[in-house]
Amino acid sequence: MKRCVILRYDEIGLKTKFVRYNFEKILIKNIKHFIPLTDEEVVIKRSRILIYTDDNEALARKVSKVFGLTSASPAFELTPDIELIKETALKLYKKGSFRISTQRADKDFPLKSQELNSVVGSYIVEKTNAKVDLEHYDTNIGIELFNNKAYMFNDIFRGFGGLPSGSQGQALCILDSEDSILAGLMIMNRGCNLLCIGSRKYFDKLKEINNSGPIGFKEELNDREKFFAVVMGKKLADYKSFPNDKAKFKVPVFYPLVGVETSDIKKKYNLV
Amino acid sequence: MKRCVILRYDEIGLKTKFVRYNFEKILIKNIKHFIPLTDEEVVIKRSRILIYTDDNEALARKVSKVFGLTSASPAFELTPDIELIKETALKLYKKGSFRISTQRADKDFPLKSQELNSVVGSYIVEKTNAKVDLEHYDTNIGIELFNNKAYMFNDIFRGFGGLPSGSQGQALCILDSEDSILAGLMIMNRGCNLLCIGSRKYFDKLKEINNSGPIGFKEELNDREKFFAVVMGKKLADYKSFPNDKAKFKVPVFYPLVGVETSDIKKKYNLV
Repeated sequence: MKRCVILRYDEIGLKTKFVRYNFEKILIKNIKHFIPLTDEEVVIKRSRILIYTDDNEALARKVSKVFGLTSASPAFELTPDIELIKETALKLYKKGSFRISTQRADKDFPLKSQELNSVVGSYIVEKTNAKVDLEHYDTNIGIELFNNKAYMFNDIFRGFGGLPSGSQGQALCILDSEDSILAGLMIMNRGCNLLCIGSRKYFDKLKEINNSGPIGFKEELNDREKFFAVVMGKKLADYKSFPNDKAKFKVPVFYPLVGVETSDIKKKYNLV
Repeated sequence: MKRCVILRYDEIGLKTKFVRYNFEKILIKNIKHFIPLTDEEVVIKRSRILIYTDDNEALARKVSKVFGLTSASPAFELTPDIELIKETALKLYKKGSFRISTQRADKDFPLKSQELNSVVGSYIVEKTNAKVDLEHYDTNIGIELFNNKAYMFNDIFRGFGGLPSGSQGQALCILDSEDSILAGLMIMNRGCNLLCIGSRKYFDKLKEINNSGPIGFKEELNDREKFFAVVMGKKLADYKSFPNDKAKFKVPVFYPLVGVETSDIKKKYNLV
């Protein structure tokens, strides 16, 4: 039984094999930018990335915040044997009411998802007398069957989803307010790398929050800097200054905050 | 004991009395655009709007979707007498575990919020044997003390928050895709009225979703149409066409979708 981390990512809209391959490559590059990992430790299997490490809880928590990932779970990887799954579930049971939730990608596993939920659930009730509660559970025991293995966990660290930073090119972010940090995060989460100018203080803050890829800071721009769009933190109420921005830059100017509430965005990025 | 609906709205950033007064006026106008109500039926009290009606559940559900409101509850309005509050709470108790949550704006009420929670909770336990559960409750009984009355309810219909449409002026929305409907909704939720051009089909859909104020449709624009900004549903990947938009319109062009996931926005507006 090995310890590992299961990383999950959305693939909505990523239909071709080529786009998916590229997406995964950039995602893994971004992960390695923050966490030193060898090629042997990181494996792609059936829409999941697996990282093999004994320190799987700390790593799952940290890596879940890389843009593009929807969640990460510290997990055990085991032979998909029903008795072994039952014993492992008992080990993963913590307290209070519980539920078992199985996802089965390996169709040759002898039990269907619902059947396995029921077999493993009954075993835990028998051993602990705990109550099953599908809605208001205190412990969730997850089982994923793929790669001819069973992966089992009781914790899910939510990520931010979106696209891996760098998959859509580099944008110039003008950091001149707290809001411009949020605007930058939004655009990184849509797949851009950032080249930043403006206040060093805001850049330091963005760097502290950012877990998603390399970002750069320049005191001054020169002609060789490449960016396909400019990002600013202005809101709808600032619309009178937009024509000036329009005149100043050749490339499109993005104002990601015009359609959203700042408080919603802060919530999304756990900044409250 | 009267039946009514309590409407709640955020006032973050609305510091002056004047802005707040205006905000409330537009909000009530928008509500009346969808639901015929007399001036006697709608009352503003201490950051709440009260609507007096016997059909309070249906109305609360419908009105909660007007932009600017964060939630609506069908409620009883009663004299703030502790025995009466206890009896009403018992009537509101539905099933399973429960909690009482009090908000006290009237500081002359003899019990503090926590004390009232405890007195009313004990009474329900005594009468029904139900379990108190602050986290995983099946029934939530809310008590709000303001206006020298007690307002009691067991249901909260969530709204979309934001600003009332029309409080920030009129924008031109170019309806040429499903995404442009979302972009329009986002900008209405930030306080704009919409003048729409483009596809009549998408306009009908937007009108069906919209509960938030009058919106208009034009086959063709003439010089007299007034709008302070243009809204389009394009995404970050469409950035190459942005310079053309820039040249076409004198006013700023908003692309609210550049920084967000379409699926997040659909979720926000209950479109999935």
